[in-house]
Amino acid sequence: MSRSGADPVDTLPAMADALQQLTSRLADIHSLDMLSWLLDWDQRTTMPVGGGAHRADHLALVERLGHERLIDPEIGRLLDELAPLEASLDPDSTDAATIRVARRDYEKAVRVPSELSEEMARAAAESVPLWLEAKATSNFELFLPVLERNFELRRRYIDCFEPRDEPYDILLDDFEPEMRSAEVTRIFAEIRDELVPLIAQLRDREIDDSFLTGDFPVDRQITLDHEIVELFGHRPDTWRIDPTEHPFASCAGIDDIRITTHYYPDALKSIFSTMHEYGHGLYQHQFPREFAHLPIASAASYGLHESQSRLWENLVGRSLPFWRFFYPRVQELFPEALGGVELERFYAGINKAQPSLIRIEADEVTYGMHVILRFELEQDIFNGRLELRDLPQRWAEKMHEYLGVEVPDDARGVLQDMHWGAGHIGYFATYLLGTVMSVQIWEKVLEDVPDLEEQIERGEFTALRTWLEVNVHAHGRKYPPQEVLRRAVGTTIDAKPYLAYLKKKYGAPVTA
Amino acid sequence: MSRSGADPVDTLPAMADALQQLTSRLADIHSLDMLSWLLDWDQRTTMPVGGGAHRADHLALVERLGHERLIDPEIGRLLDELAPLEASLDPDSTDAATIRVARRDYEKAVRVPSELSEEMARAAAESVPLWLEAKATSNFELFLPVLERNFELRRRYIDCFEPRDEPYDILLDDFEPEMRSAEVTRIFAEIRDELVPLIAQLRDREIDDSFLTGDFPVDRQITLDHEIVELFGHRPDTWRIDPTEHPFASCAGIDDIRITTHYYPDALKSIFSTMHEYGHGLYQHQFPREFAHLPIASAASYGLHESQSRLWENLVGRSLPFWRFFYPRVQELFPEALGGVELERFYAGINKAQPSLIRIEADEVTYGMHVILRFELEQDIFNGRLELRDLPQRWAEKMHEYLGVEVPDDARGVLQDMHWGAGHIGYFATYLLGTVMSVQIWEKVLEDVPDLEEQIERGEFTALRTWLEVNVHAHGRKYPPQEVLRRAVGTTIDAKPYLAYLKKKYGAPVTA
Repeated sequence: MSRSGADPVDTLPAMADALQQLTSRLADIHSLDMLSWLLDWDQRTTMPVGGGAHRADHLALVERLGHERLIDPEIGRLLDELAPLEASLDPDSTDAATIRVARRDYEKAVRVPSELSEEMARAAAESVPLWLEAKATSNFELFLPVLERNFELRRRYIDCFEPRDEPYDILLDDFEPEMRSAEVTRIFAEIRDELVPLIAQLRDREIDDSFLTGDFPVDRQITLDHEIVELFGHRPDTWRIDPTEHPFASCAGIDDIRITTHYYPDALKSIFSTMHEYGHGLYQHQFPREFAHLPIASAASYGLHESQSRLWENLVGRSLPFWRFFYPRVQELFPEALGGVELERFYAGINKAQPSLIRIEADEVTYGMHVILRFELEQDIFNGRLELRDLPQRWAEKMHEYLGVEVPDDARGVLQDMHWGAGHIGYFATYLLGTVMSVQIWEKVLEDVPDLEEQIERGEFTALRTWLEVNVHAHGRKYPPQEVLRRAVGTTIDAKPYLAYLKKKYGAPVTA
Repeated sequence: MSRSGADPVDTLPAMADALQQLTSRLADIHSLDMLSWLLDWDQRTTMPVGGGAHRADHLALVERLGHERLIDPEIGRLLDELAPLEASLDPDSTDAATIRVARRDYEKAVRVPSELSEEMARAAAESVPLWLEAKATSNFELFLPVLERNFELRRRYIDCFEPRDEPYDILLDDFEPEMRSAEVTRIFAEIRDELVPLIAQLRDREIDDSFLTGDFPVDRQITLDHEIVELFGHRPDTWRIDPTEHPFASCAGIDDIRITTHYYPDALKSIFSTMHEYGHGLYQHQFPREFAHLPIASAASYGLHESQSRLWENLVGRSLPFWRFFYPRVQELFPEALGGVELERFYAGINKAQPSLIRIEADEVTYGMHVILRFELEQDIFNGRLELRDLPQRWAEKMHEYLGVEVPDDARGVLQDMHWGAGHIGYFATYLLGTVMSVQIWEKVLEDVPDLEEQIERGEFTALRTWLEVNVHAHGRKYPPQEVLRRAVGTTIDAKPYLAYLKKKYGAPVTA
């Protein structure tokens, strides 16, 4: 057979070469992304504050280098060249998924002019200090111009894309790929209709959780948090836990997972944020080694990421089987505070549900309404039904309507979250979508591992961790999040299991 | 006046634009360099060991990106375009120095083929684990092939450049720009001739330093080290100290200085390495803000860097005025170990000079001979007078000749340092050159600040810090190291002050 250049048999080596070139470029892009995470982690945990000025430059450089590499026309050319290969491959293969996800990322990135990208990044960076000041002084007027600029930039961002059902869909797609606003609206309406009466019912229930405040020495909380993460499990020498103002999870690779927590010396709180961040960290830790160096080694969406943190925090970490196993150890560490508190009271206390002002301090039941409120406000803004200057008033009205609480000031109202200041518009919904999915996933694990609760009561987590690895984490970003969910649990997102779980757990007084 | 393109008046805006383009590219290169330092710091202090595999990729990427940017032909074009501007500028100006140093870096970098650069980096990365194993098992045979590969690669590196007086000059230039082997040989011969008899004289002197081993709780050593760094001085919120296996100094910018130290719970040693690393850190901390984002914000040479660390460690940190001030505090922190040891005995103990096997544990007097030995061996190898396989034997002979000690095994001999394994051939000399320069600088400070010792006795370091800033640090890498030294002290390198200092301090028994 002739081996001349025109021979079709020669397309195979050429394809292999193009694929190798593409993955090599993608690996650089992924490494730059990991570097950016590491720089952010370092800034929030270890950097001397004076380093902030350089750090902003370094972060901007790393992001610019990643963006330049992604929008390089050579990526477009390689993707064109690889289209026939992609079509011939098993769509579930790593190579097919790598090409598919690269195409999605490339096509989104090239639509946004560099000037707009840079202006959005700059606006976000400049907004955060102003947000901090506005929040500290409860001064919405100070924050309003920032808010207007960020929303205006997002409108310009939306204009870069083909119209969808609703402009907001384009924002949502960055956090929850392929999710539609209409779908979120439908799910959230279903949740709201059930939660509002459930919350009203809980309002006057008296539950004692006073023992959760008191003397909880930080060194022993640190011991506890390390024991929890060890108990839940990971490969040796691959994780660290550090204290920060706000807990978060980060990683510089599947074997370099970094979670943080916040210690209050007078309250037992850090353990729950540690379990939450463990869930995020485990997702990043269990991407397959085969593609750990590529952009598909990322969560399928913010919502799915949140499903993992919520699962460990709530479905494990606020469950009776878990505390049957672990409570004696906690009593041992804090004998003064908890020695006289029996398991039943402790379990009821950590599951106390009560409407409050602050989203990040909300319990399992009321949390959803905080998210729904924010999503609805974002919708109203983009649909022209709400002016930004009227946000505080509308916020207060909705807090009253949904949770029955009165907002005393904007610091504890519309200024409490940094998301809008940081330009993360379209993000909030993923918190509740994730929580909903966490229950769907949990029920499927229970089906596949029928003695799961008994295992947890014995402090065994291998089966749970492995189930999540095989059914969720192993896909990375190969598929859109709803496809990952469908492969894991058999259906796409559905609020019913979540609502049934809440009603079962909270419909009657929570007791052990 | 016509403003057409051909008019000479238009060259000024064009020049300004070219300079702006060059500095913008140089700022990226410098940021990548800072990132590489940060990644290295993180790896050695905080990274979970499992992260090592990703980290090697990330470090290689950052170095590749920096190198690609430096050898970009556009840099060469901009440097050509800027030649007339450079000639017209005050050579001491930041702009002139920026162009000059960029030209030096560019012209060196483009001479080395990328394949050779990559092979040297890969060989170094692959050698270090083998060196660790060879050292742990005292197995020189295991290390020999690595050594041969590294030296062979350096020979190929030398061949990339125009011949100089000696091939070794080309290696030296990477660590000590413009220094010649012949000059080092001359200085080291002068030192050797004085040190060998001085060391012989010290060999049988009995000095009690037994109180420096004992119970030195690590938490109090940490307190002590933080107090020392605070006392010596820096801008608030710009430094951190962490424990590591081997002490080092790093930085991610002038306001993000990170030094490390090693704590032995049974010995008071960390304080001296902390003072040493403080000196390195202060150099990086005091580069002028005006050019802190550019490559000229670096030490003029490894030797000058070492002059700063040695100055704080030895000329301040092992001096009587300093301990008159600080010893009471150390006694307060370690009352059991030092409460009964008067200042005179302590001072004599920390200045005990005694030949030993390990360079990094050597005292002020014998240290120089460890360096001279290594430099002479490197010279012999490059001049064909020594085969690599004969290194252990020659090492033992020289240790006997210079220090009167017998080398019991290669782990405590030729395998003790990682430099040759890491491809740092031509580096060792800078340790002693720096020590020599530290004394020249110290004498000049004493001349300009006549009451310096009284200030130190009162715990005041501002005048010293400021002198170093103005006369050394402010230049960054604007000039070659000998020009920096000449501007600071009036002469280039001269071993006489160093030898006089040692003979004065150690010629007679050291007493307070």
